[in-house]
Amino acid sequence: MDRTRIAQLYADQEELGGSLVTVGGWVRSIRDMKDVGFVTLNDGSCFKDLQVVMTRSGLANYDEINSQGVGAALVVRGKLALTPDRPQPFELQAEEISVEGTCAPDYPLQKQRQTREFLRTQQHLRARTNLFRAVFRIRSVAAYAIHTFFQSRGFVYVNTPIITTSDAEGAGEMFQVTTLDMNNVPKTDDGKVDYSKDFFGAAAHLTVSGQLQGENFAQSMGDIYTFGPTFRAEDSNTRRHAAEFWMVEPEMAFCDLKGEMDVSEQMLKFVIRTVLDKCPDELNMLNRFVDKGLLARLEHVASSDFARVTYTEAIDILEKAVESGVKFEYPVKWGIDLQTEHERYLCEQHFKRPTFVTDYPAAIKAFYMRMNEDGKTVAAADCLAPGIGEIIGGSQREERYDKLLARIEELGMDEQQYKYYLDLRRYGSTKHAGFGLGFERLVMYLTGVDNIRDVLPHPRTVGNADF
Amino acid sequence: MDRTRIAQLYADQEELGGSLVTVGGWVRSIRDMKDVGFVTLNDGSCFKDLQVVMTRSGLANYDEINSQGVGAALVVRGKLALTPDRPQPFELQAEEISVEGTCAPDYPLQKQRQTREFLRTQQHLRARTNLFRAVFRIRSVAAYAIHTFFQSRGFVYVNTPIITTSDAEGAGEMFQVTTLDMNNVPKTDDGKVDYSKDFFGAAAHLTVSGQLQGENFAQSMGDIYTFGPTFRAEDSNTRRHAAEFWMVEPEMAFCDLKGEMDVSEQMLKFVIRTVLDKCPDELNMLNRFVDKGLLARLEHVASSDFARVTYTEAIDILEKAVESGVKFEYPVKWGIDLQTEHERYLCEQHFKRPTFVTDYPAAIKAFYMRMNEDGKTVAAADCLAPGIGEIIGGSQREERYDKLLARIEELGMDEQQYKYYLDLRRYGSTKHAGFGLGFERLVMYLTGVDNIRDVLPHPRTVGNADF
Repeated sequence: MDRTRIAQLYADQEELGGSLVTVGGWVRSIRDMKDVGFVTLNDGSCFKDLQVVMTRSGLANYDEINSQGVGAALVVRGKLALTPDRPQPFELQAEEISVEGTCAPDYPLQKQRQTREFLRTQQHLRARTNLFRAVFRIRSVAAYAIHTFFQSRGFVYVNTPIITTSDAEGAGEMFQVTTLDMNNVPKTDDGKVDYSKDFFGAAAHLTVSGQLQGENFAQSMGDIYTFGPTFRAEDSNTRRHAAEFWMVEPEMAFCDLKGEMDVSEQMLKFVIRTVLDKCPDELNMLNRFVDKGLLARLEHVASSDFARVTYTEAIDILEKAVESGVKFEYPVKWGIDLQTEHERYLCEQHFKRPTFVTDYPAAIKAFYMRMNEDGKTVAAADCLAPGIGEIIGGSQREERYDKLLARIEELGMDEQQYKYYLDLRRYGSTKHAGFGLGFERLVMYLTGVDNIRDVLPHPRTVGNADF
Repeated sequence: MDRTRIAQLYADQEELGGSLVTVGGWVRSIRDMKDVGFVTLNDGSCFKDLQVVMTRSGLANYDEINSQGVGAALVVRGKLALTPDRPQPFELQAEEISVEGTCAPDYPLQKQRQTREFLRTQQHLRARTNLFRAVFRIRSVAAYAIHTFFQSRGFVYVNTPIITTSDAEGAGEMFQVTTLDMNNVPKTDDGKVDYSKDFFGAAAHLTVSGQLQGENFAQSMGDIYTFGPTFRAEDSNTRRHAAEFWMVEPEMAFCDLKGEMDVSEQMLKFVIRTVLDKCPDELNMLNRFVDKGLLARLEHVASSDFARVTYTEAIDILEKAVESGVKFEYPVKWGIDLQTEHERYLCEQHFKRPTFVTDYPAAIKAFYMRMNEDGKTVAAADCLAPGIGEIIGGSQREERYDKLLARIEELGMDEQQYKYYLDLRRYGSTKHAGFGLGFERLVMYLTGVDNIRDVLPHPRTVGNADF
């Protein structure tokens, strides 16, 4: 059928005013004034609704339409009438309305406001609410902004594998992937699981990061990025953890830590600016009902020059804060991993803008980060954002074969597992750097929504993979 | 470091001619003419190489550079000299060259040509060859073209879940996802696997399709698309099957089969046109060395009006072909699933352009496809493309609650598993339609590469999840 999206009515209202259009959408409310009725319709093409006006005299099935419940699907043909003197800029004067699909009376979204906890039990329907309509559109706009940012700079999008037989950075609990019969697991002579009989001929898991494989491609294409799902089988039931989440992991050859920070900062600003431009209605609603500081914070971050400070300087700042009476739950001392309270103090109280903390102690960072000249810190850069803390973790990678090998041995890691990774340091190694952005954390930041379950279409957490 | 990408040298050669630039890249060859040397450098930013000219008199470390092997990483600072009278439009006259990373003598890509089979054992390096550089850039450009196509039409990108506790359409073998200890699987009293102890509290698998969840969002946002990894644990070792591959699955509310075909056709043409525009060097190489009909075929498809024919008419055409002497391996008869040989005959010999075959027998299609008035065919549409056969499978979905429920019961499926899916038909159901595009199959079509292992960055197939 030839329908016009409501978004187009708003975009092209001047040209479309006075013309006949057909619109399909779902009822958000119906008000009956006896001989005139008003139907508020939304078709998902934009945040705004369309006001449909129908008259008993003009519509043979006026009563049928009038009796439809919230959630029913209608197709309306009518004249778009501009109404410059009313709150809404136009209305659709119905000449014909047909019921595409009725809505059963047990529709769970009858009431205007349900708790988000309840809506998590209605994941197949919750995108019909204002909150989730806004969140999922912003999620989509942000995802495309990330692609646009990298593609317009010549980065190559690489789909690194989801199933892997290596455990990447040894970080995080992994999900096992198997086709073995769990009721009857084949065993070897010495009683262990016989993975030679499994699909891949080896124990396989879901990836926790595409970085190491991303480096394979950066050492050929120069600038690459991944954007795909990653997994952690952590038994943590918090607002910030999901078992399945999407990550963006760019990797750049011939690039040092400064270059990496420049790209992270530009990317964050570009995504925020794009969402501010493209989703004003969604952001205004979220700013009003979810997080009153949202718009101000996004505007601030998009227009700030990010601060840059070393970890050692940051510890100094935090120690001075403690001396002057600031209370932290976790003690501050060189060598600690910064807690969210520390991160937020740095970017919210001290620098008052997004802040890169660089050159962390090697002991608290991953094996692949480049050792600094001091022999105790590595070229890492975490980007801390006001209101949330760490949002991006980046580093320059160790490109020197000997140093990388020594680190792998020092940490007791299996050298054979990293043969390919080490190879990259033997065949035309380059200074290179990259970062990881947890996409859901970014969407939480863009929307002010404080639970990761509410920014994932169908969240997977401990005990939950329904829908 | 502040480097200029070789792509930019080609794009902005007029402005950059005569200026000093710094380039980083990998050696493809070095020719020593005693006092003058030529280094061919590639940095992955484009398919083309850069010719670097160095002179013994101008370069203190001439011999060091001259002794570098293929694959070494260099950083070159020099003057960009336009050379309108030579085959290449410019050269970089080196003033300074430093070795960023040497290349060990056992570099596996020394020789110009290796077999693709050998290169599959070198997945961390193979993107450095012309073939794979071209394939993976086209893959990236095509992926972004898909996003651009849908986003510019207001579609919302939805990340449907990878881990699922339902088996979607009951189609295809699935991988199990678990955190149970395979050496010691917990059992219930009656001796079955105790999935209540598993991470999600239930048996979980990797998704085979995001369609059903995509419908949840189409019934709110109107037009949505997914683009993510999907999985099949099929024990088939063919050129066209991988265990992990990416799918694009748009879903449109208020849309019938004709609308679905229109969008598929527009999308395919848009992607092909974009790749033709953005990857001429890559396509020319592939057309020369991989598939001599490639460019002509892509141009043809991008400019064709796709044919549309019903399955019943198609069978008639095929039966007439058999009568007139065409030999098929598989017999032709109403009710059969079309084989690739049939599909290719239809679009290559008969229609001579991409062809939608519609209204297949219900018995050979999925349960969710909309039953036609005849009660025996469904509103499906497969898009067949010359040179490959089926490239897109789409359908109008059964939006009528009673008919869908009857079909689920008829097929002996577990109604409870489809509760949410049935709910969509109770709460404001709409005519809706969508399709699935196997992204790797599209990349094979765009590149002429005939093995799916060679269009995936790190392919996963039976027995192979290395790298």
